[in-house]
Amino acid sequence: MIGYAFMGRVHSQAWRSVGAFFDLPLAPRMAVIAGRSKEQTEAAAAQLGWADVETDWRELIKRDDVQIVDICTPGDSHADIAIAALQAGKHVICEKPLANTVAEAEAMVRAAAAAPGKSMVAFNYRRVPAIALARRYVEEGRIGEIRHVRAAYLQDWIVDPEFPLVWRLQKDKAGSGALGDIGAHIVDAAQFITGENVVGVSALTETFIKERPLAAESAGLGASRAESTGQVTVDDAALFIGRLSGGGLASFEATRFAYGRKNAMRIEIFGSRGSLAFDFEAMNELWFSSGGGGFERILVTEPDHPYVGAWWPPGHGLGYEHTFTHEIKDFLEAVATGADPSPSFADGLRVQRVLEAVEQSAADGSRYTNVED
Amino acid sequence: MIGYAFMGRVHSQAWRSVGAFFDLPLAPRMAVIAGRSKEQTEAAAAQLGWADVETDWRELIKRDDVQIVDICTPGDSHADIAIAALQAGKHVICEKPLANTVAEAEAMVRAAAAAPGKSMVAFNYRRVPAIALARRYVEEGRIGEIRHVRAAYLQDWIVDPEFPLVWRLQKDKAGSGALGDIGAHIVDAAQFITGENVVGVSALTETFIKERPLAAESAGLGASRAESTGQVTVDDAALFIGRLSGGGLASFEATRFAYGRKNAMRIEIFGSRGSLAFDFEAMNELWFSSGGGGFERILVTEPDHPYVGAWWPPGHGLGYEHTFTHEIKDFLEAVATGADPSPSFADGLRVQRVLEAVEQSAADGSRYTNVED
Amino acid sequence: MIGYAFMGRVHSQAWRSVGAFFDLPLAPRMAVIAGRSKEQTEAAAAQLGWADVETDWRELIKRDDVQIVDICTPGDSHADIAIAALQAGKHVICEKPLANTVAEAEAMVRAAAAAPGKSMVAFNYRRVPAIALARRYVEEGRIGEIRHVRAAYLQDWIVDPEFPLVWRLQKDKAGSGALGDIGAHIVDAAQFITGENVVGVSALTETFIKERPLAAESAGLGASRAESTGQVTVDDAALFIGRLSGGGLASFEATRFAYGRKNAMRIEIFGSRGSLAFDFEAMNELWFSSGGGGFERILVTEPDHPYVGAWWPPGHGLGYEHTFTHEIKDFLEAVATGADPSPSFADGLRVQRVLEAVEQSAADGSRYTNVED
Amino acid sequence: MIGYAFMGRVHSQAWRSVGAFFDLPLAPRMAVIAGRSKEQTEAAAAQLGWADVETDWRELIKRDDVQIVDICTPGDSHADIAIAALQAGKHVICEKPLANTVAEAEAMVRAAAAAPGKSMVAFNYRRVPAIALARRYVEEGRIGEIRHVRAAYLQDWIVDPEFPLVWRLQKDKAGSGALGDIGAHIVDAAQFITGENVVGVSALTETFIKERPLAAESAGLGASRAESTGQVTVDDAALFIGRLSGGGLASFEATRFAYGRKNAMRIEIFGSRGSLAFDFEAMNELWFSSGGGGFERILVTEPDHPYVGAWWPPGHGLGYEHTFTHEIKDFLEAVATGADPSPSFADGLRVQRVLEAVEQSAADGSRYTNVED
Repeated sequence: MIGYAFMGRVHSQAWRSVGAFFDLPLAPRMAVIAGRSKEQTEAAAAQLGWADVETDWRELIKRDDVQIVDICTPGDSHADIAIAALQAGKHVICEKPLANTVAEAEAMVRAAAAAPGKSMVAFNYRRVPAIALARRYVEEGRIGEIRHVRAAYLQDWIVDPEFPLVWRLQKDKAGSGALGDIGAHIVDAAQFITGENVVGVSALTETFIKERPLAAESAGLGASRAESTGQVTVDDAALFIGRLSGGGLASFEATRFAYGRKNAMRIEIFGSRGSLAFDFEAMNELWFSSGGGGFERILVTEPDHPYVGAWWPPGHGLGYEHTFTHEIKDFLEAVATGADPSPSFADGLRVQRVLEAVEQSAADGSRYTNVED
Repeated sequence: MIGYAFMGRVHSQAWRSVGAFFDLPLAPRMAVIAGRSKEQTEAAAAQLGWADVETDWRELIKRDDVQIVDICTPGDSHADIAIAALQAGKHVICEKPLANTVAEAEAMVRAAAAAPGKSMVAFNYRRVPAIALARRYVEEGRIGEIRHVRAAYLQDWIVDPEFPLVWRLQKDKAGSGALGDIGAHIVDAAQFITGENVVGVSALTETFIKERPLAAESAGLGASRAESTGQVTVDDAALFIGRLSGGGLASFEATRFAYGRKNAMRIEIFGSRGSLAFDFEAMNELWFSSGGGGFERILVTEPDHPYVGAWWPPGHGLGYEHTFTHEIKDFLEAVATGADPSPSFADGLRVQRVLEAVEQSAADGSRYTNVED
Repeated sequence: MIGYAFMGRVHSQAWRSVGAFFDLPLAPRMAVIAGRSKEQTEAAAAQLGWADVETDWRELIKRDDVQIVDICTPGDSHADIAIAALQAGKHVICEKPLANTVAEAEAMVRAAAAAPGKSMVAFNYRRVPAIALARRYVEEGRIGEIRHVRAAYLQDWIVDPEFPLVWRLQKDKAGSGALGDIGAHIVDAAQFITGENVVGVSALTETFIKERPLAAESAGLGASRAESTGQVTVDDAALFIGRLSGGGLASFEATRFAYGRKNAMRIEIFGSRGSLAFDFEAMNELWFSSGGGGFERILVTEPDHPYVGAWWPPGHGLGYEHTFTHEIKDFLEAVATGADPSPSFADGLRVQRVLEAVEQSAADGSRYTNVED
Repeated sequence: MIGYAFMGRVHSQAWRSVGAFFDLPLAPRMAVIAGRSKEQTEAAAAQLGWADVETDWRELIKRDDVQIVDICTPGDSHADIAIAALQAGKHVICEKPLANTVAEAEAMVRAAAAAPGKSMVAFNYRRVPAIALARRYVEEGRIGEIRHVRAAYLQDWIVDPEFPLVWRLQKDKAGSGALGDIGAHIVDAAQFITGENVVGVSALTETFIKERPLAAESAGLGASRAESTGQVTVDDAALFIGRLSGGGLASFEATRFAYGRKNAMRIEIFGSRGSLAFDFEAMNELWFSSGGGGFERILVTEPDHPYVGAWWPPGHGLGYEHTFTHEIKDFLEAVATGADPSPSFADGLRVQRVLEAVEQSAADGSRYTNVED
């Protein structure tokens, strides 16, 4: 694993737990974790259960005792690491967004196609049991032809203007703001559940707070408070509407300024014969309508629901971390059987192209912009 | 009153009931109702409690025993009737949308300015106690600066392709489809609650079902089934995103194809210090967040909530019809005191201009289109 | 009508409105209202739409222009008025609880049986569309054999110890407290929906605040504050568990001390094949489960739902008052067709006997007490 | 650890994960797991991460490399194991209910008092962050004096009469049915949150399905289907009402026949100044009312909420398993610091005495029965 921050912690928990709940074809060994600071990486290794550490990801990739590389770093390093790992014959699981630009993502897709290893982009929300169930319902034809997708990912963690300028607010590190961080998830979820693509968009983006205090980590030593601010170079919020390949309409809203919404990753899908609704803040529930004035709140904890049978009895809900456990279970199965994992780097590129079209539209008077194929 | 269909029925109930609950400065008398068919209008008068009937609205306007004219007809006749009534010295309350075009609405605003009578456009959702309370909270500064408005009006009554071509699906009668019928409500509600204007939009519209069976009422006699279809000439759905005068972003979605949603007129407003959420399908509730991870579900039935004290004890909810009772109460008070009723025809025109910008944007590649002042 | 307070107002609104929405076999005329104070009764008549007033209910009963007597007074006068009215050949609709004692209720049942007029006790919650739909589902066998009823009626209007000693807190007027006022409703609703009887109970009751300030209305002139308190002689809360005639278990809780619950009249019914749940604070919704981990939230506003077709399009909810409109519509139909209205005085007596068993059990160490047949 | 079934799996996951999220004073080592079948215990050890196995719990207790014994067996063996382990100088964490009888529980409390080791009964629901937050609110006086507790634990896993006669339906193994299995949890939660005791109860219990097919595990070899049924010797459902030490009323309902409810462990607490509500089916939410007609839905995922800061950012919910992680974290801290863990065996005994009073009341015509001190 490369990276030991938020994503590193949650991936580690998944690697540590997956074998206790799923019958796996491969028994993962948590061999080595890489990070720049030796001290911090060693502390992380001890806490998270990794046997060894490296301070340079290139060294990690060279190791013979490593077959799978799990990339948990910010987006600006994804392409370099993933391509090198694939070329070294490793299997790669890479955090989303796949890359910070379409060009990088394309290079990654080419590398994945050329390499023997398997590759997957970690859109973990596909592994929320309720979202996997939604996909199943659409595949089974239960909602008919898709008319509308309404997706939003609402957070509020930077509402306070005094919240510091962390790396996620810097374009060179993060690529974009709410758009790439959380907008990517709802675009992927919409495409995953419907089985359709977003083919064009019209967009608005906004940065409400344009200057913020430097984070302690990035503030220069001895800088006075007045000097300690920096420009926010990414979007705080991105709104876009668009068309789906099947003729439906879609709306998306990704924002970090939705006061009171903590992680409201929501999607509603309206079809000609039924509809579905989901909100991650109640992640064990899927709402389904098939007529008669009603919406059924399905508690997605039944044995025949996706992933759920491996865990607890009905009604004993899962949490955020389990989406990663499911992701790794699926990845290990693909590696073992030689199947192509999903979502593939190509799926990640597809999302990246939607995000690029969003940025182009926003820069071009919201003009409707086709998503490249 | 002119018109006795759906809107006529609900307005009549409001006229009949308002005096029993509110201490009014004027006691309304339900003098006369006008409709084209004498027989049907007489039946309606008997059922709805009107003392007399006219079969020509021009005759109604001439009558000395009429001081207030309530226009409940489709949008194509609003301008003619309202202008004539105002010129005849009557007070006018007119159903929304104010008119089918901006030009008509402008003429109505001019007539209202020139006439002695009071005029109001019947955006009844302003009189949902929860929406009036939301407005109060914004005015009191409880949510701070507005960052986001997320509004949707979701219905599903024409999901079935066999649903007939009623007047609401014909451009010459209705002006537009979901846009003018229900989109108008959420634009008005957004502007009302925030106290801001929508200043520009980018839009997509769609007609999913382009041809429908003629309604019994409009089908030619003896036409065979195959001949009995007609073109749908309005939008089934309209999506638009835009900017508010205070710098916030807004998204709107009006559709009649949201399977399972019956009358989900929803609005969420996120500010710098708090937020609000409402869904008409639970019309007695307002959700409010002001920190700490929580959203408070306020049951808007307390004595100090808008309008509610006149009705029942706390927890005894109101229904759809009461929004009209409140509207008429406010209108009668304005007439009695000489105050200007709200929403005024100018407010109606303002909404109309937003709708026009939506249509222009949709016709022009979703390009961001400023709303005329 | 006799009585013009809270119940008088809501019944009047129902009499005034019913004809505009339902095709009635009889056109009601709001002839006369009775109250003790001439001045107040005249004001009420003017506001509520009654043509004439009486200050003695006995005079009202004598009038030839009165065929139906609607009793909206406190429970201590129900028996006298209802029996006199029935003996005078009138049809009678009587507010609940039917009487303050079983003996009175029995006398009323006998009078009803002997008289030509129709009689009904006004358990209005039976006419909530969602509750009527729940009854329909049980009758259709959709939930199978009843295992559990969980019913609660939660209010909080006397949580404040300074709330005054109104008539509802005095045993001589009200008969009992939460038990008869709101407990009666949930007992009736449980029996109505399930079609079964409560056959025995074990109960606890409590009066949390035993002394309260006298209400302005009842305080002696010139009494000092210290002298102006009186004993609360009824229960603040009543809890009871029991058995149903079909073998299921039931729990009931009626309280005026449920801080934050305003009118939470709730009932959950669990059967061998399905279940139902309702909360009056969201009165347009019924929840239904029939397997698969889900509960369907049915918005009870569809044309084929009970009573609803007469009102508005789907999704346009009803309020508290409409339960009374439906009650009067059903009563008028029964009067016109000669059918026996439901709930009958015998149904009211049945509820009274359950309440009596509750009081006996509470007085006898919560011992399980059979409900008399 | 002793036992590797459902509870063994979830406890193992907690032991395995706790160190990655909490800074612990002690680093637990998963030394050895005991079970009767060598083969099955070895498979469990491999899957769940235990280093060694024993097939006799007495051998496990003798081992020097064991300092803590975690008892995950059915209730009939709790007393023997816990007492032996305590006498052997081990720390003991024991699944609930503490024992199958009050006598056993008393012996365990005596053993705990006499032994040097620490002991805790595993009422894991105390470690749901929302329930811990509810306790905090009560302690802070936010809801005032307790008037009502309404608790229910609703499941439906044996609704089907063909569901087999597993050990939980046999009195000799399980002690009681819904009462001890899930009723124990709500009694403990009520006492924990309020800080009060249940001092007396009146109860009804029922066994709806009195005979069931034998489970494969317990069916005799060669028994025909007709012979393969057995008596259900425990309650399917237990309802009881009672009084709290502070003067409030409480109602409890524990059932396995609540069709459609999977793990609805619910508690509402109404005080003189506020109230709280919780439902485990939405375990990351706590509802709180403190006036004005509102109930606040608190998403219990904020950094300052109990336990939550150690996990993910706000809005990223926890699941069932994390209650056990918290339990073990608290237990390890108590062991390290020498503090007495909570809930203690004495707390477990207190719950046991309430359950015993429930059984006595149910057997004695629901008579109100005091809970022994």
